[in-house]
Amino acid sequence: MRTIHPQQVIKHKRDGLMLSEQEIQGFVQGVTDRSITDAQTAAFLMACFLRGLDAGELAALTSAMRVSGEVFDASPLSTFTVDKHSTGGVGDKTSLLIAPILAAAGVANKTPAGVPGICVPMISGRSLGHTGGTLDKLETIPGFDTQLTLARFAEVLRHCGACMIGQTPRLVPADRILYGLRDHTSTVESPYLITASIMSKKLAESLNALVLDVKVGSGAFMQREEDARLLARLMVETGTAAGARTVALLTKMAEPLGRYAGNWVEVLECVDILQGRRHPLSQDLIHLTNVLAGWMLHLAGDAASPEEGYLLSNKLLATGAAYKSWLEIVAAQGGDIAIFDHPETFHKPAASTTLFAETKGFLNVIDCTEVGWAVQRLGAGRAKPGDPVSAHAGIEVHAKIGERVKPGQPLVTLFAENEALLAEPLEMLRATYQIEPDRPADKPIVRDVIRA
Amino acid sequence: MRTIHPQQVIKHKRDGLMLSEQEIQGFVQGVTDRSITDAQTAAFLMACFLRGLDAGELAALTSAMRVSGEVFDASPLSTFTVDKHSTGGVGDKTSLLIAPILAAAGVANKTPAGVPGICVPMISGRSLGHTGGTLDKLETIPGFDTQLTLARFAEVLRHCGACMIGQTPRLVPADRILYGLRDHTSTVESPYLITASIMSKKLAESLNALVLDVKVGSGAFMQREEDARLLARLMVETGTAAGARTVALLTKMAEPLGRYAGNWVEVLECVDILQGRRHPLSQDLIHLTNVLAGWMLHLAGDAASPEEGYLLSNKLLATGAAYKSWLEIVAAQGGDIAIFDHPETFHKPAASTTLFAETKGFLNVIDCTEVGWAVQRLGAGRAKPGDPVSAHAGIEVHAKIGERVKPGQPLVTLFAENEALLAEPLEMLRATYQIEPDRPADKPIVRDVIRA
Repeated sequence: MRTIHPQQVIKHKRDGLMLSEQEIQGFVQGVTDRSITDAQTAAFLMACFLRGLDAGELAALTSAMRVSGEVFDASPLSTFTVDKHSTGGVGDKTSLLIAPILAAAGVANKTPAGVPGICVPMISGRSLGHTGGTLDKLETIPGFDTQLTLARFAEVLRHCGACMIGQTPRLVPADRILYGLRDHTSTVESPYLITASIMSKKLAESLNALVLDVKVGSGAFMQREEDARLLARLMVETGTAAGARTVALLTKMAEPLGRYAGNWVEVLECVDILQGRRHPLSQDLIHLTNVLAGWMLHLAGDAASPEEGYLLSNKLLATGAAYKSWLEIVAAQGGDIAIFDHPETFHKPAASTTLFAETKGFLNVIDCTEVGWAVQRLGAGRAKPGDPVSAHAGIEVHAKIGERVKPGQPLVTLFAENEALLAEPLEMLRATYQIEPDRPADKPIVRDVIRA
Repeated sequence: MRTIHPQQVIKHKRDGLMLSEQEIQGFVQGVTDRSITDAQTAAFLMACFLRGLDAGELAALTSAMRVSGEVFDASPLSTFTVDKHSTGGVGDKTSLLIAPILAAAGVANKTPAGVPGICVPMISGRSLGHTGGTLDKLETIPGFDTQLTLARFAEVLRHCGACMIGQTPRLVPADRILYGLRDHTSTVESPYLITASIMSKKLAESLNALVLDVKVGSGAFMQREEDARLLARLMVETGTAAGARTVALLTKMAEPLGRYAGNWVEVLECVDILQGRRHPLSQDLIHLTNVLAGWMLHLAGDAASPEEGYLLSNKLLATGAAYKSWLEIVAAQGGDIAIFDHPETFHKPAASTTLFAETKGFLNVIDCTEVGWAVQRLGAGRAKPGDPVSAHAGIEVHAKIGERVKPGQPLVTLFAENEALLAEPLEMLRATYQIEPDRPADKPIVRDVIRA
């Protein structure tokens, strides 16, 4: 029995009035049970886009969306749940490293009931726009199942300390409906609606703590620092209001993170790191991973400070403890861990080409979003939802921004399923990988930390 | 073949950019051929509501809507076409008088081809909200057909100088779609969208001139004078941009216009006037009719000034010329003119009751919108589109605002199809027909004239 009038709720937001919790709950319920039409929802979304939402409205919207379907309940585990969310980048594979690092820390400190003291109930997404998706990367591991039931999800967490799955059809259905409409009605880029979308899904994981990686720069959805900062603040406020310890890091996304961008190639890079190697081109990835995992360990009470957390994370990587957890998680989710013995032999792109420097100077990446689109068009992304993605498509970078290069030096190698797919991405990369006479200004990867 | 991207058009308006004529035309075309979804249209409407439209955008939107379906083409008649549109009031029956007055003037000055020198191609609407509708009133005349084809419409115009019909299904289809969505998505009260809706329909009548009666006061949709003034200005600008001589009058809507409000009772009052009688309670109606018709006659070149037009209009009423045209129009549209011999005998409400003054003092009407709703709930209006309306439901007022009344004096009589329908409207009227110790300030009915 609906208790609100959709037209009245739309009208109130349209006129800049503050919506009550009851109005927001009733509206989200009506969106979910489809008694509110798409047209009404679209009008509401545009009114929210243009009028904004205050902290109370945003908390209420997030909460109503969170409970619109089934919610993961971690309380039977009696553990500390923590997760990380990134707003999306190019070559951003930190999730694949963070889950096993935190799992290793959790397994090392089990609760009296024998459950890992920290669990990472990670529910991830697929490739979106020019950015990659954790699920698409994991699914290149033969047998790896990202579509577990919530019961099986809890079981893997209980045994391994981390589990990485996709959204179930019944989890946060309101977001699925709203997201589809936003894409369609030009109401995507609202920091308020983005916050409600991200936080409703993350908080449905039953989290005690959450670290947000808000990307800023030419490869981020939020290219201007002020927009990223507002989004970070809204998400921290909303997480805190929902009772989760929430911190957001503003981090640079000006070039692909680490050495590879794609699907399997990103798994390859992570396994290389988990196995103890530290390729120079993976340094930025390892650093950011330790920063984020360090914050998560700190929030979970396993490290007295984020800096101590950083060192602990790095140690869990270096000792092979995180790799052990990685193998356990992959095996528990049905993945074939034998391929990690020689992971590079599994990288079999049918076609590849390399972009070389034509002059001498310093490397700069003009537009990292274009790099992301090049990766997607090589076959790593989809033209439309449901399309298959290529495991082996992607790029390997041979140099980073600010590096001194000379003519003939390789800059980036492109991989695809066939030759025809290489031409357009090669031109896109050629246009954005520029050699400049002066060294571009170097900025630290972590720009700021936003706390409650 | 659509030439625009709906999401881009929505985004441009959302971000406050100016839309091009091509974007607006493409969007309206997509709305009409249903290739643009209701959700996209709703988002666009909300963006227009909150961002507004400039004069060029409004002219383009009106024009695109006007030509979205069939358009009446008056050019074969080689006459001067003029119409009047009211934004809606209570007891506002001026259309029923104006059409025959102008027709009488047109018939008196035929073109060389024998066509009336002025024609009124009046396409009207039905009862909306608390206001009455011309079609509902006309259809109480036995046999009167408001659903003529445009060919028959032209024929009646050629013979009578005026014709009163409803929108055909193929006329301005974009407005039908947009209006339905606006009602549903709380985007009705935008002066920009109201202007486009009204003007696209009126300009589809192929008009040389248009007089707009913009109501202001407690019984109007626009209760604040500044809102009514903005709407009037937008409509005059849009009409002028489309090549029609356009004038708007801001007129008072603080109590029912004339003596009756309802359906048949309004026809009854008009016939009484057309037959030459001038009941004291009909004076405001006769005055406003002459003002509006006077402006129309002036714009059509039949009067040197609106004041001369007023006198000509009053003469056409007094001489019976307008009544002769009325009979011709009604007969041409299939109506039974025999009932006008004794029209009061056709008024047969099954139930009636009267509200009496309880104290002495001066009459005031607190909220004329409530009076409109009382009339509608007596049976004159509809709960939903397509419902039948009662011919005989309505009210007869016995006193006007500012009149000195004494206890026991009748204020208003209510008519309905059965006793049960009387109770709620009686209480509504009792609450709004108040006796006050001081005489309310008297304001002239015409508050201002807005010209290009």
